[in-house]
Amino acid sequence: MTAGASGHQSSARLAAAVARVAGLDGAASAIARRRLDQLTKPAGSLGRLEDLAGQLAGITGEPEWVPARRTIVVFAADHGVAVRGVSAYPQAVTAQMVATFLGGGAAINVLARQARADVLVVDVGVASPASTPRQLPPDVRFLSRPIRAGTSDMTAGPAMTRAEALAAIDLGVEIGASEAAAGTSVIGTGEMGIANTTSASAITAVMTGLPVADVTGRGTGIDPAGHARKVGAIELALRVNRPDPDDALDVLAAVGGFEIAALAGLILGAAAARIPVILDGFITGAAALVAAGFAPAIGPRLIAGHVSAEPGHRIVLEHLGLRPLLDLDLRLGEGTGGALAIGLIDAACQVRDGMATFDAAGVSRRA
Amino acid sequence: MTAGASGHQSSARLAAAVARVAGLDGAASAIARRRLDQLTKPAGSLGRLEDLAGQLAGITGEPEWVPARRTIVVFAADHGVAVRGVSAYPQAVTAQMVATFLGGGAAINVLARQARADVLVVDVGVASPASTPRQLPPDVRFLSRPIRAGTSDMTAGPAMTRAEALAAIDLGVEIGASEAAAGTSVIGTGEMGIANTTSASAITAVMTGLPVADVTGRGTGIDPAGHARKVGAIELALRVNRPDPDDALDVLAAVGGFEIAALAGLILGAAAARIPVILDGFITGAAALVAAGFAPAIGPRLIAGHVSAEPGHRIVLEHLGLRPLLDLDLRLGEGTGGALAIGLIDAACQVRDGMATFDAAGVSRRA
Repeated sequence: MTAGASGHQSSARLAAAVARVAGLDGAASAIARRRLDQLTKPAGSLGRLEDLAGQLAGITGEPEWVPARRTIVVFAADHGVAVRGVSAYPQAVTAQMVATFLGGGAAINVLARQARADVLVVDVGVASPASTPRQLPPDVRFLSRPIRAGTSDMTAGPAMTRAEALAAIDLGVEIGASEAAAGTSVIGTGEMGIANTTSASAITAVMTGLPVADVTGRGTGIDPAGHARKVGAIELALRVNRPDPDDALDVLAAVGGFEIAALAGLILGAAAARIPVILDGFITGAAALVAAGFAPAIGPRLIAGHVSAEPGHRIVLEHLGLRPLLDLDLRLGEGTGGALAIGLIDAACQVRDGMATFDAAGVSRRA
Repeated sequence: MTAGASGHQSSARLAAAVARVAGLDGAASAIARRRLDQLTKPAGSLGRLEDLAGQLAGITGEPEWVPARRTIVVFAADHGVAVRGVSAYPQAVTAQMVATFLGGGAAINVLARQARADVLVVDVGVASPASTPRQLPPDVRFLSRPIRAGTSDMTAGPAMTRAEALAAIDLGVEIGASEAAAGTSVIGTGEMGIANTTSASAITAVMTGLPVADVTGRGTGIDPAGHARKVGAIELALRVNRPDPDDALDVLAAVGGFEIAALAGLILGAAAARIPVILDGFITGAAALVAAGFAPAIGPRLIAGHVSAEPGHRIVLEHLGLRPLLDLDLRLGEGTGGALAIGLIDAACQVRDGMATFDAAGVSRRA
């Protein structure tokens, strides 16, 4: 579907973003590739780093694009389905982790620092408002833009209204556009929300048509009984809500989360602005599936930072046609895998720009 | 075999290194793991980064080890078998690439810079001496320690004498020890030598017992006819020399290369000094197989930086019991994949040291 198909609930901002998501710039990719082939190494021998350099040129239209400014946007929200005992952690942890992000002590803070990225934390619906420290670390920003204080329990009806889903997407599109306007070169996606793998599994089951059990993992580490409850809750939610897989907004409203909707919007907004978007784990992958529901051509504009330990994540990436850069059994989220992948983006650009050419170095070409 | 088994050709330095290669320090690993479990994330959710932090503690005996000083040691040498048309590039490229390393314009220079590593280039047997620039970049060092100006053609007899093989290993052990004494925290392995995937495939076939065709790839990109020549040359070399798979020195002498022998020594020397060693691609993997021939317990002391596009590399890593950190279709060598993996070592250490604990952050533990 396109945004226009949702009728009076469509957003002009969303529709404009969707309309601007096009294929890659093949000419820019080819220029980057030609440059790589002149460098003192066998053609293609840096494998996926070279593919990445070509893709980055194709996304941005700039053969010599460099990741000058990096931002990891972390959307946080709570999930009504948490009351069904689907997570190993209590709901209060969402707000506590937001406070930890704002204090600079979470894994995403550490890995963003290593990647020289800022962290933008956005409360799109945390149940209990996070206590905001008086002073944020210099590389952390915070926006409070809640849609509502957590979704409704999806096993008893839609997680949110279509209007709420659209408002959350719209917020994401807006942030993508404003980051682009502020000069951000590359955006990493991140999230926090207790029970959000339940929502991601539900979205994935609907949009891929696969059985719930095939796309549902242990999340933050729930025990087998909890995993059975989680599968049962998702199956119940799908029976109760009957989301239409061809209507991404309907899927979001039925079983989504505010952070997932906002991520889908961010992905669309950044792609529309020709900014490379790095996906993180399963949640951001489910958001990309939703984004692809609006803009089916979006896949090549996305970079899969890693594939997580969640079984549904590999399936999501296959559906998007993406091959992950890293495979490190991560299952934390927050944007951590995407932050790690920024190092490979740096490497791809530095190889392209920093190596000698065959001619300059006086190295013989192939026999 | 042990070094002592080679009788009068044994090296006291090698024997001492082999004797010091022991298992991991389980107590240090456990301390690092306990620290990780106190941090604001589900236990184990950073997957292989946490495994890596535990392994690094086990290798070094220091739960809070950090990679303060990094060195990538690149051994370069030529191979007599190059006359058999087994490479896509002329032999002169070995010396030309050494000159490029010394000028700072090769891929390994770029990726070492990103990893904040020095590059130590060692000529252990380049056929035509490299022209050394008057002034090296500040992060590049050069040692000229040739065993001989390239090995003999392995299809007509042994590539080198046992004494030469031992001298090259000994040089590697010496460099491992001297780097350790100079304060290097972590060593990346690298190499340059036209036709050296031919040697690595021969070593791998002998030491794993697999057919030559199963462990022989396209190297820098040879065409199908060249690949057939390469497989044929290796099969001929194995018939002519009949290396004893239980005698690593015999394997090296028969079908090895000076850079591969020196790498085996470096790996043993660094492991003996409890310095983490990062393997790069297929060549360094074959050298690690040789090192394991001397010190069978060495596997857990090694870090597999990546798995390359060469079919033999995956087999080598399985034989060593190692799982690669990266899988990026690299097939360049020089140490490039190992240099990229240093970013993940940094990440593992920074997560361990930079995150808040559950108690300090006031985050609830599991329900």
